[in-house]
Amino acid sequence: MKIDFWFEFGSTYSYPAAMRIENLAKQRGLEVSWHPFLLGPIFREQGWDDSPFNIYPVMGRYMWRDVQRVCEACKIPFRRPSRFPRNGLLAARVACQFSSAPWIPDFVRSVYLANFSEDRDISTPDTVSSCLSELVAEPDSVIGEAQSLAAKNRLRKQTERAVEEGIFGAPSFLVGRELFWGNDRLEAALSWAERHGA
Amino acid sequence: MKIDFWFEFGSTYSYPAAMRIENLAKQRGLEVSWHPFLLGPIFREQGWDDSPFNIYPVMGRYMWRDVQRVCEACKIPFRRPSRFPRNGLLAARVACQFSSAPWIPDFVRSVYLANFSEDRDISTPDTVSSCLSELVAEPDSVIGEAQSLAAKNRLRKQTERAVEEGIFGAPSFLVGRELFWGNDRLEAALSWAERHGA
Repeated sequence: MKIDFWFEFGSTYSYPAAMRIENLAKQRGLEVSWHPFLLGPIFREQGWDDSPFNIYPVMGRYMWRDVQRVCEACKIPFRRPSRFPRNGLLAARVACQFSSAPWIPDFVRSVYLANFSEDRDISTPDTVSSCLSELVAEPDSVIGEAQSLAAKNRLRKQTERAVEEGIFGAPSFLVGRELFWGNDRLEAALSWAERHGA
Repeated sequence: MKIDFWFEFGSTYSYPAAMRIENLAKQRGLEVSWHPFLLGPIFREQGWDDSPFNIYPVMGRYMWRDVQRVCEACKIPFRRPSRFPRNGLLAARVACQFSSAPWIPDFVRSVYLANFSEDRDISTPDTVSSCLSELVAEPDSVIGEAQSLAAKNRLRKQTERAVEEGIFGAPSFLVGRELFWGNDRLEAALSWAERHGA
Protein backbone atom coordinates (compact mmCIF):
# COMPACT_ATOMS: atom_id res chain seq x y z
CA MET A 1 0.00 0.00 0.00
CA LYS A 2 1.36 3.41 -0.89
CA ILE A 3 0.70 7.11 -0.65
CA ASP A 4 1.81 9.62 -3.27
CA PHE A 5 3.31 12.73 -1.70
CA TRP A 6 3.18 15.79 -3.98
CA PHE A 7 5.34 18.66 -2.78
CA GLU A 8 6.92 21.95 -3.86
CA PHE A 9 10.17 23.03 -2.23
CA GLY A 10 9.05 26.66 -1.93
CA SER A 11 5.81 25.77 -0.12
CA THR A 12 5.66 26.44 3.61
CA TYR A 13 3.10 23.80 4.54
CA SER A 14 4.93 21.20 2.45
CA TYR A 15 7.80 21.52 4.93
CA PRO A 16 6.16 19.92 8.01
CA ALA A 17 4.53 17.34 5.73
CA ALA A 18 7.92 16.40 4.24
CA MET A 19 9.46 16.12 7.70
CA ARG A 20 6.64 13.92 9.03
CA ILE A 21 5.42 11.69 6.24
CA GLU A 22 8.04 8.93 6.17
CA ASN A 23 7.82 8.05 9.87
CA LEU A 24 4.02 8.23 9.96
CA ALA A 25 3.75 6.05 6.86
CA LYS A 26 6.19 3.48 8.26
CA GLN A 27 4.14 3.21 11.46
CA ARG A 28 1.21 2.14 9.31
CA GLY A 29 3.15 -0.11 6.97
CA LEU A 30 2.69 2.28 4.05
CA GLU A 31 5.18 3.20 1.36
CA VAL A 32 5.74 6.83 0.30
CA SER A 33 6.16 7.76 -3.34
CA TRP A 34 7.87 11.17 -3.69
CA HIS A 35 6.45 13.56 -6.30
CA PRO A 36 8.12 16.97 -6.50
CA PHE A 37 6.34 19.43 -8.77
CA LEU A 38 6.18 23.18 -9.43
CA LEU A 39 3.38 25.41 -8.17
CA GLY A 40 4.45 28.38 -10.32
CA PRO A 41 2.83 27.17 -13.57
CA ILE A 42 -0.31 26.11 -11.68
CA PHE A 43 -0.62 29.47 -9.93
CA ARG A 44 -0.08 31.30 -13.22
CA GLU A 45 -3.06 29.45 -14.72
CA GLN A 46 -5.16 30.88 -11.85
CA GLY A 47 -3.91 34.35 -12.75
CA TRP A 48 -1.43 34.57 -9.87
CA ASP A 49 2.15 35.65 -10.61
CA ASP A 50 3.28 35.11 -7.01
CA SER A 51 2.35 33.02 -3.99
CA PRO A 52 -1.23 33.74 -2.86
CA PHE A 53 0.30 34.39 0.56
CA ASN A 54 2.11 37.38 -0.97
CA ILE A 55 -0.83 38.47 -3.15
CA TYR A 56 -3.19 38.43 -0.13
CA PRO A 57 -1.06 39.87 2.71
CA VAL A 58 -3.68 39.35 5.44
CA MET A 59 -3.69 35.65 4.62
CA GLY A 60 0.10 35.70 4.42
CA ARG A 61 0.47 37.21 7.90
CA TYR A 62 -1.78 34.50 9.27
CA MET A 63 0.09 31.75 7.42
CA TRP A 64 3.48 32.67 8.93
CA ARG A 65 2.07 32.60 12.43
CA ASP A 66 0.21 29.37 11.76
CA VAL A 67 3.22 27.57 10.25
CA GLN A 68 5.26 28.58 13.28
CA ARG A 69 2.62 27.09 15.60
CA VAL A 70 2.33 23.94 13.47
CA CYS A 71 6.10 23.41 13.50
CA GLU A 72 6.25 23.98 17.26
CA ALA A 73 3.49 21.42 17.79
CA CYS A 74 5.38 18.88 15.62
CA LYS A 75 8.73 19.79 17.22
CA ILE A 76 10.20 20.77 13.86
CA PRO A 77 12.69 23.67 13.75
CA PHE A 78 11.41 26.72 11.92
CA ARG A 79 12.83 30.11 11.00
CA ARG A 80 10.90 32.38 8.67
CA PRO A 81 12.94 32.60 5.46
CA SER A 82 14.16 36.08 4.54
CA ARG A 83 12.82 35.44 1.04
CA PHE A 84 9.53 33.78 0.09
CA PRO A 85 8.83 31.85 -1.95
CA ARG A 86 12.27 30.54 -2.80
CA ASN A 87 12.87 29.01 -6.22
CA GLY A 88 13.00 25.23 -5.82
CA LEU A 89 13.42 24.43 -9.50
CA LEU A 90 16.88 22.83 -9.36
CA ALA A 91 16.10 20.85 -6.19
CA ALA A 92 12.82 19.68 -7.76
CA ARG A 93 14.64 18.54 -10.90
CA VAL A 94 17.05 16.51 -8.75
CA ALA A 95 14.23 14.99 -6.70
CA CYS A 96 12.19 14.23 -9.82
CA GLN A 97 15.03 12.72 -11.84
CA PHE A 98 16.16 10.50 -8.94
CA SER A 99 12.76 9.98 -7.30
CA SER A 100 13.30 6.27 -6.61
CA ALA A 101 16.84 6.61 -5.24
CA PRO A 102 17.20 5.51 -1.63
CA TRP A 103 18.63 8.90 -0.63
CA ILE A 104 15.61 10.92 -1.87
CA PRO A 105 13.75 11.21 1.47
CA ASP A 106 16.90 12.52 3.18
CA PHE A 107 17.61 14.89 0.30
CA VAL A 108 14.07 16.29 0.36
CA ARG A 109 14.22 16.90 4.11
CA SER A 110 17.67 18.47 3.80
CA VAL A 111 16.44 20.99 1.20
CA TYR A 112 13.38 21.86 3.30
CA LEU A 113 15.53 22.38 6.38
CA ALA A 114 17.86 24.62 4.36
CA ASN A 115 14.90 26.76 3.28
CA PHE A 116 12.69 26.86 6.37
CA SER A 117 15.10 26.35 9.24
CA GLU A 118 18.48 27.62 8.02
CA ASP A 119 17.26 30.42 5.72
CA ARG A 120 19.57 29.36 2.89
CA ASP A 121 19.07 30.06 -0.79
CA ILE A 122 17.95 26.66 -2.11
CA SER A 123 17.89 27.91 -5.71
CA THR A 124 21.68 27.72 -6.10
CA PRO A 125 23.74 24.70 -7.18
CA ASP A 126 25.94 25.34 -4.12
CA THR A 127 23.11 24.80 -1.66
CA VAL A 128 21.66 21.84 -3.56
CA SER A 129 25.14 20.32 -3.75
CA SER A 130 25.63 20.70 0.00
CA CYS A 131 22.25 19.01 0.59
CA LEU A 132 23.53 16.09 -1.53
CA SER A 133 27.02 15.98 -0.07
CA GLU A 134 26.45 13.38 2.61
CA LEU A 135 24.06 11.32 0.49
CA VAL A 136 25.76 10.68 -2.84
CA ALA A 137 29.37 10.16 -3.87
CA GLU A 138 29.34 12.79 -6.63
CA PRO A 139 26.88 15.65 -6.03
CA ASP A 140 28.06 17.52 -9.11
CA SER A 141 27.25 14.65 -11.44
CA VAL A 142 23.77 14.37 -9.89
CA ILE A 143 23.22 18.09 -10.42
CA GLY A 144 24.56 17.81 -13.97
CA GLU A 145 22.11 15.04 -14.80
CA ALA A 146 19.26 17.00 -13.16
CA GLN A 147 19.94 19.81 -15.63
CA SER A 148 19.74 17.57 -18.69
CA LEU A 149 16.93 18.04 -21.17
CA ALA A 150 15.47 14.68 -20.13
CA ALA A 151 15.33 15.75 -16.46
CA LYS A 152 13.77 19.11 -17.33
CA ASN A 153 11.09 17.37 -19.37
CA ARG A 154 10.49 14.89 -16.61
CA LEU A 155 9.68 17.61 -14.08
CA ARG A 156 7.55 19.46 -16.63
CA LYS A 157 5.52 16.29 -17.25
CA GLN A 158 5.21 15.66 -13.53
CA THR A 159 3.72 19.14 -13.05
CA GLU A 160 1.31 18.46 -15.93
CA ARG A 161 0.31 15.24 -14.23
CA ALA A 162 -0.36 17.14 -11.01
CA VAL A 163 -2.85 19.31 -12.88
CA GLU A 164 -4.47 16.21 -14.43
CA GLU A 165 -4.89 14.77 -10.93
CA GLY A 166 -6.74 17.90 -9.78
CA ILE A 167 -3.83 19.17 -7.68
CA PHE A 168 -3.89 22.94 -7.11
CA GLY A 169 -1.68 23.40 -4.04
CA ALA A 170 0.99 21.79 -1.94
CA PRO A 171 1.41 19.57 -0.11
CA SER A 172 -1.06 17.18 -1.67
CA PHE A 173 -1.48 13.47 -1.09
CA LEU A 174 -2.97 10.95 -3.48
CA VAL A 175 -4.19 7.52 -2.48
CA GLY A 176 -5.18 6.08 -5.80
CA ARG A 177 -7.30 8.94 -7.19
CA GLU A 178 -8.39 10.19 -3.77
CA LEU A 179 -6.90 13.65 -3.22
CA PHE A 180 -6.00 15.29 0.09
CA TRP A 181 -4.62 18.82 0.31
CA GLY A 182 -2.60 20.35 3.11
CA ASN A 183 -0.25 19.24 5.84
CA ASP A 184 -3.29 19.01 8.12
CA ARG A 185 -4.75 16.29 5.88
CA LEU A 186 -1.70 14.01 6.09
CA GLU A 187 -3.17 11.84 8.84
CA ALA A 188 -6.50 11.55 7.00
CA ALA A 189 -4.71 10.53 3.81
CA LEU A 190 -2.70 7.88 5.64
CA SER A 191 -5.84 6.52 7.29
CA TRP A 192 -7.54 6.43 3.90
CA ALA A 193 -4.62 4.43 2.49
CA GLU A 194 -4.83 1.98 5.38
CA ARG A 195 -8.58 1.48 4.97
CA HIS A 196 -8.87 1.48 1.20
CA GLY A 197 -5.50 0.11 0.15
CA ALA A 198 -3.69 1.48 -2.85
CA MET B 1 -11.79 31.02 29.78
CA LYS B 2 -13.44 31.55 26.42
CA ILE B 3 -13.04 31.07 22.71
CA ASP B 4 -14.54 33.42 20.11
CA PHE B 5 -16.12 31.53 17.25
CA TRP B 6 -16.40 33.58 14.04
CA PHE B 7 -18.65 32.01 11.44
CA GLU B 8 -20.56 32.75 8.22
CA PHE B 9 -23.74 30.81 7.49
CA GLY B 10 -22.86 30.34 3.82
CA SER B 11 -19.43 28.85 4.58
CA THR B 12 -19.04 25.10 4.14
CA TYR B 13 -16.23 24.53 6.63
CA SER B 14 -18.03 26.67 9.23
CA TYR B 15 -20.70 23.97 9.28
CA PRO B 16 -18.72 21.14 10.95
CA ALA B 17 -17.09 23.72 13.25
CA ALA B 18 -20.51 25.02 14.35
CA MET B 19 -21.74 21.48 14.97
CA ARG B 20 -18.68 20.52 17.01
CA ILE B 21 -17.52 23.55 18.97
CA GLU B 22 -19.92 23.61 21.91
CA ASN B 23 -19.34 20.02 23.01
CA LEU B 24 -15.59 20.19 22.54
CA ALA B 25 -15.40 23.46 24.48
CA LYS B 26 -17.52 22.08 27.31
CA GLN B 27 -15.23 19.05 27.64
CA ARG B 28 -12.39 21.47 28.33
CA GLY B 29 -14.35 23.83 30.58
CA LEU B 30 -14.31 26.61 27.97
CA GLU B 31 -17.06 29.04 27.06
CA VAL B 32 -17.96 29.78 23.43
CA SER B 33 -18.72 33.31 22.30
CA TRP B 34 -20.70 33.29 19.02
CA HIS B 35 -19.69 35.81 16.34
CA PRO B 36 -21.59 35.65 13.07
CA PHE B 37 -20.18 37.86 10.34
CA LEU B 38 -20.33 38.24 6.56
CA LEU B 39 -17.63 37.03 4.20
CA GLY B 40 -19.06 38.89 1.18
CA PRO B 41 -17.62 42.33 2.05
CA ILE B 42 -14.28 40.75 3.00
CA PHE B 43 -14.07 38.79 -0.25
CA ARG B 44 -15.00 41.89 -2.26
CA GLU B 45 -12.03 43.73 -0.73
CA GLN B 46 -9.80 40.95 -2.12
CA GLY B 47 -11.36 41.49 -5.54
CA TRP B 48 -13.63 38.42 -5.37
CA ASP B 49 -17.31 38.81 -6.23
CA ASP B 50 -18.11 35.19 -5.35
CA SER B 51 -16.81 32.40 -3.14
CA PRO B 52 -13.22 31.50 -4.07
CA PHE B 53 -14.54 27.92 -4.39
CA ASN B 54 -16.66 29.10 -7.31
CA ILE B 55 -14.00 31.41 -8.77
CA TYR B 56 -11.42 28.58 -8.70
CA PRO B 57 -13.40 25.50 -9.79
CA VAL B 58 -10.55 23.01 -9.30
CA MET B 59 -10.32 24.10 -5.67
CA GLY B 60 -14.11 24.00 -5.43
CA ARG B 61 -14.32 20.43 -6.69
CA TYR B 62 -11.80 19.41 -4.07
CA MET B 63 -13.61 21.32 -1.31
CA TRP B 64 -16.91 19.50 -1.87
CA ARG B 65 -15.23 16.13 -1.68
CA ASP B 66 -13.20 17.16 1.35
CA VAL B 67 -16.18 18.57 3.27
CA GLN B 68 -18.05 15.34 2.63
CA ARG B 69 -15.13 13.33 4.06
CA VAL B 70 -14.78 15.69 7.03
CA CYS B 71 -18.49 15.42 7.85
CA GLU B 72 -18.37 11.63 7.53
CA ALA B 73 -15.41 11.49 9.90
CA CYS B 74 -17.28 13.70 12.43
CA LYS B 75 -20.55 11.80 11.90
CA ILE B 76 -22.35 14.96 10.80
CA PRO B 77 -25.05 14.68 8.12
CA PHE B 78 -24.13 16.37 4.86
CA ARG B 79 -25.87 16.94 1.56
CA ARG B 80 -24.29 19.23 -1.02
CA PRO B 81 -26.59 22.28 -1.30
CA SER B 82 -28.13 22.85 -4.72
CA ARG B 83 -27.02 26.46 -4.44
CA PHE B 84 -23.70 27.77 -3.10
CA PRO B 85 -23.02 30.01 -1.34
CA ARG B 86 -26.42 30.69 0.16
CA ASN B 87 -27.18 34.15 1.51
CA GLY B 88 -27.00 34.00 5.30
CA LEU B 89 -27.65 37.71 5.87
CA LEU B 90 -30.95 37.43 7.77
CA ALA B 91 -29.79 34.49 9.87
CA ALA B 92 -26.57 36.36 10.68
CA ARG B 93 -28.54 39.44 11.75
CA VAL B 94 -30.60 37.27 14.09
CA ALA B 95 -27.53 35.55 15.51
CA CYS B 96 -25.68 38.86 15.91
CA GLN B 97 -28.56 40.77 17.50
CA PHE B 98 -29.30 37.95 19.97
CA SER B 99 -25.75 36.62 20.34
CA SER B 100 -25.97 36.15 24.11
CA ALA B 101 -29.41 34.52 24.14
CA PRO B 102 -29.40 30.97 25.52
CA TRP B 103 -31.00 29.64 22.32
CA ILE B 104 -28.25 30.94 20.00
CA PRO B 105 -26.15 27.74 19.78
CA ASP B 106 -29.24 25.71 18.84
CA PHE B 107 -30.35 28.34 16.35
CA VAL B 108 -26.92 28.44 14.69
CA ARG B 109 -26.82 24.66 14.34
CA SER B 110 -30.38 24.61 13.03
CA VAL B 111 -29.56 27.10 10.26
CA TYR B 112 -26.42 25.16 9.29
CA LEU B 113 -28.35 21.90 9.14
CA ALA B 114 -30.99 23.59 6.97
CA ASN B 115 -28.27 24.72 4.53
CA PHE B 116 -25.86 21.79 4.47
CA SER B 117 -27.99 18.81 5.35
CA GLU B 118 -31.54 19.69 4.28
CA ASP B 119 -30.71 21.86 1.24
CA ARG B 120 -33.14 24.57 2.29
CA ASP B 121 -32.98 28.23 1.29
CA ILE B 122 -31.73 29.86 4.50
CA SER B 123 -32.05 33.36 3.01
CA THR B 124 -35.83 33.49 3.47
CA PRO B 125 -37.74 34.64 6.57
CA ASP B 126 -39.74 31.39 6.31
CA THR B 127 -36.68 29.18 6.79
CA VAL B 128 -35.17 31.38 9.48
CA SER B 129 -38.53 31.44 11.25
CA SER B 130 -38.78 27.65 11.16
CA CYS B 131 -35.25 27.43 12.63
CA LEU B 132 -36.46 29.65 15.48
CA SER B 133 -39.81 27.95 15.96
CA GLU B 134 -38.84 25.50 18.68
CA LEU B 135 -36.47 27.94 20.40
CA VAL B 136 -38.38 31.17 20.96
CA ALA B 137 -42.01 31.98 21.68
CA GLU B 138 -42.38 34.55 18.87
CA PRO B 139 -40.11 33.92 15.90
CA ASP B 140 -41.66 36.77 13.92
CA SER B 141 -40.81 39.35 16.55
CA VAL B 142 -37.21 38.06 16.67
CA ILE B 143 -36.99 38.36 12.88
CA GLY B 144 -38.56 41.81 13.04
CA GLU B 145 -36.00 43.02 15.55
CA ALA B 146 -33.18 41.46 13.49
CA GLN B 147 -34.25 43.66 10.57
CA SER B 148 -34.13 46.88 12.58
CA LEU B 149 -31.55 49.52 11.73
CA ALA B 150 -29.79 48.83 15.03
CA ALA B 151 -29.44 45.12 14.21
CA LYS B 152 -28.21 45.86 10.68
CA ASN B 153 -25.56 48.20 12.06
CA ARG B 154 -24.57 45.68 14.66
CA LEU B 155 -23.77 43.02 12.05
CA ARG B 156 -21.99 45.59 9.88
CA LYS B 157 -19.79 46.57 12.84
CA GLN B 158 -19.15 42.95 13.69
CA THR B 159 -17.88 42.32 10.15
CA GLU B 160 -15.66 45.41 10.43
CA ARG B 161 -14.29 44.03 13.67
CA ALA B 162 -13.53 40.74 11.95
CA VAL B 163 -11.36 42.63 9.47
CA GLU B 164 -9.63 44.49 12.31
CA GLU B 165 -8.84 41.16 13.97
CA GLY B 166 -7.15 39.92 10.78
CA ILE B 167 -9.96 37.52 9.90
CA PHE B 168 -10.12 36.70 6.17
CA GLY B 169 -12.12 33.47 6.09
CA ALA B 170 -14.50 31.27 8.05
CA PRO B 171 -14.61 29.59 10.39
CA SER B 172 -12.10 31.50 12.48
CA PHE B 173 -11.37 31.20 16.17
CA LEU B 174 -9.89 33.88 18.41
CA VAL B 175 -8.35 33.22 21.79
CA GLY B 176 -7.52 36.71 22.93
CA ARG B 177 -5.74 38.03 19.82
CA GLU B 178 -4.47 34.61 18.73
CA LEU B 179 -6.17 33.70 15.44
CA PHE B 180 -6.90 30.23 14.09
CA TRP B 181 -8.52 29.67 10.70
CA GLY B 182 -10.43 26.62 9.52
CA ASN B 183 -12.48 23.81 11.00
CA ASP B 184 -9.26 21.78 11.12
CA ARG B 185 -7.77 24.31 13.57
CA LEU B 186 -10.63 24.04 16.10
CA GLU B 187 -8.80 21.57 18.33
CA ALA B 188 -5.59 23.66 18.22
CA ALA B 189 -7.57 26.79 19.17
CA LEU B 190 -9.22 25.01 22.10
CA SER B 191 -5.86 23.69 23.31
CA TRP B 192 -4.44 27.20 23.03
CA ALA B 193 -7.31 28.54 25.15
CA GLU B 194 -6.67 25.86 27.76
CA ARG B 195 -2.97 26.57 27.94
CA HIS B 196 -2.95 30.36 27.67
CA GLY B 197 -6.27 31.28 29.25
CA ALA B 198 -8.46 33.97 27.76
